[in-house]
Amino acid sequence: MNYHFSEALSGMDGTATRDIFKLLSRPEIISFAGGLPASDALPTRLMGEIAAEIFVDETEALRCLQYSVTEGYPGFRETVIDLVRDLGITGITPDNVLVISGGGQGLDLMLKAFVNKGDVVLMEDPTFLSFIQAAKSYNAVAVGVAADSDGVSLGDLEAKLKRYAPKLMYLIPTFSNPTGKTYPIEKRKAVIDLAHRYGVIILEDDPYSRLRFAGEPVPPMITLDKHGIVVYVSSFSKTIAPGLRTGFAVGPAEIIRKLTIGKQNVDLHTSSLSQLAIKKYIEKGYFLPNIAKSIPLYRQRKTAMTDAINRYMPASFKHTDPDGGLFIWGEFDAPVNTTDMFQAAIAENVAYIVGSVFFADGGGANTLRLNYTNESPERIEEGVQRLGRVFKGV
Amino acid sequence: MNYHFSEALSGMDGTATRDIFKLLSRPEIISFAGGLPASDALPTRLMGEIAAEIFVDETEALRCLQYSVTEGYPGFRETVIDLVRDLGITGITPDNVLVISGGGQGLDLMLKAFVNKGDVVLMEDPTFLSFIQAAKSYNAVAVGVAADSDGVSLGDLEAKLKRYAPKLMYLIPTFSNPTGKTYPIEKRKAVIDLAHRYGVIILEDDPYSRLRFAGEPVPPMITLDKHGIVVYVSSFSKTIAPGLRTGFAVGPAEIIRKLTIGKQNVDLHTSSLSQLAIKKYIEKGYFLPNIAKSIPLYRQRKTAMTDAINRYMPASFKHTDPDGGLFIWGEFDAPVNTTDMFQAAIAENVAYIVGSVFFADGGGANTLRLNYTNESPERIEEGVQRLGRVFKGV
Repeated sequence: MNYHFSEALSGMDGTATRDIFKLLSRPEIISFAGGLPASDALPTRLMGEIAAEIFVDETEALRCLQYSVTEGYPGFRETVIDLVRDLGITGITPDNVLVISGGGQGLDLMLKAFVNKGDVVLMEDPTFLSFIQAAKSYNAVAVGVAADSDGVSLGDLEAKLKRYAPKLMYLIPTFSNPTGKTYPIEKRKAVIDLAHRYGVIILEDDPYSRLRFAGEPVPPMITLDKHGIVVYVSSFSKTIAPGLRTGFAVGPAEIIRKLTIGKQNVDLHTSSLSQLAIKKYIEKGYFLPNIAKSIPLYRQRKTAMTDAINRYMPASFKHTDPDGGLFIWGEFDAPVNTTDMFQAAIAENVAYIVGSVFFADGGGANTLRLNYTNESPERIEEGVQRLGRVFKGV
Repeated sequence: MNYHFSEALSGMDGTATRDIFKLLSRPEIISFAGGLPASDALPTRLMGEIAAEIFVDETEALRCLQYSVTEGYPGFRETVIDLVRDLGITGITPDNVLVISGGGQGLDLMLKAFVNKGDVVLMEDPTFLSFIQAAKSYNAVAVGVAADSDGVSLGDLEAKLKRYAPKLMYLIPTFSNPTGKTYPIEKRKAVIDLAHRYGVIILEDDPYSRLRFAGEPVPPMITLDKHGIVVYVSSFSKTIAPGLRTGFAVGPAEIIRKLTIGKQNVDLHTSSLSQLAIKKYIEKGYFLPNIAKSIPLYRQRKTAMTDAINRYMPASFKHTDPDGGLFIWGEFDAPVNTTDMFQAAIAENVAYIVGSVFFADGGGANTLRLNYTNESPERIEEGVQRLGRVFKGV
């Protein structure tokens, strides 16, 4: 049978990703390719305690197993409101909050709510691969905006706002995936001003800001928005556990309502069992202390990687040095193609992600992304040493 | 701020649904409007036992909390393969199975995989409201096919296959929502033959077939498909618990692969906690016995409703008498508009769903849907008596 798939998914066969994951399952490979939080930081014991309590109260047990409402498990949006207060996100009601099935669902629902076929969506170049793919799955045109060391270039942003009249702009302003960069507050304000002037909605993706191991926090863009144009999406994947697939969106009530309608026909509501586990985890006061416990681990691994890079990588390798998050971005100041080199790296039993996949319109042939959170410092050093051999003389 | 939402969601404001749910939360109202499984049948005690065990094994606990693969939690697809064998679905491998976040996600992913803007999607008239809305959210054209007492009319189906060259046909052949009707095996075969002749994929939605309290099982359409054109979607919402938002799709490997790619950018994978809870529930042998325990309850409530209809409703009210599932479909053989009568019903503290919402192209003004699974027999009798007063003399 010859199947006629939609245009939206016709270009995606997922073979490349699948092949890479097959490779990475080989235990001898030191992988900097993933985007996983440190397994050592996952709260298995605390979740065990909570899981054992969830079904003790018969009323709550029934509520957890029966259908729930799309907006979120009863009381959970209020928990989220309390949780984001220390980020400076205040003055919101449950109508400004939607519980989602992981941060990625927030990105998908924003595209569903705003994008028609052929619409341009702006994003920093490079950006989160999955957002580029999601945009394409809505037949949107993904256009990258050039970036400086402190976030999108305002000049290029304004030029593209003028030229494309986009509906939506996607940013990860804190510890960006893939670069690890953070926009300073002035840049955030300037981007909001520009977006407002050109009538564009900003989708602020913030899965990483709580994983800060150096420097001072910068307020989320939504706290600087006076026009109702920023929607903030976050997730518990990096702060509690990704397997529970739970996150939240905060934004203007009218937009949140539209996202809710979009979600209704997609998965009706997020798993109540996941929501309840996270709600109890937060209410028991485990959230911030458990993150605090994991911070030294992240700092140590990041330092292990930058130390090893300085030691083993060629001088032509320039890299970011993030204050938090999961990723280091590397760029060769030399004519090297990281795609061509990937097999050589695998032959040395070390893996990275080829940087070009994070660019909306191609480019970045000389770049790569390194994740430091899910290997031990010893394996990180060993892995970078192998990478140094691969790129020797470049 | 004036938001410019997408065409796909622009027509949907959800106000009607929201208002109805507000009304229904009033405890004095006897509601036949929902689509919930009987709360009395939800396995709160068994799930409590399982939840307490999930995090005991440290390896499994870590696997449950960390990212997983899109296809399904390790080993869960094999559990599904075992589970569907008694339905006659055999000879499949994990490549034929995708774990989804509730049956609704299967519908959404099938639309994403096959439908371009403007494509026609066929469905039985009337059909599941959420599928009509999901089709519209992909800018598809929803076209209804007329139905006889035993499922879609073959004549009208062929006419519409010819006229519209649709990509996809959506059917709920067993205990349909909203009608409760079941297609006999000959009708199933004939529909598959027609679909094959016109190159159309059949999306078989089967959330209800295990809730059979009378008559003999009819094999799912996928078991009759020799061409690789049927994708079977089911859910644990009616057989275990809807709050866990977990279901599965079975179909040709090439289609399942495309659905997997679509799911990757939507929610990456279904909550591992939900998947693991259901996997353990099935492996402990709770699945079939717990359904068997709930069957008498469903039968009793259905009988309470048909008895009450015969006693209290006017002679002009014709209705289905299902052998399973959740719904009875009613039609007045008289010029009455159930939308106009809805406020009168609410004034009598009884609620139904207006039938016209289940029609792809309008119609059904004289119809309504009644759910019998989530009220006691006493409340069912009282509620139908109230309905009888509302429609007296019609």
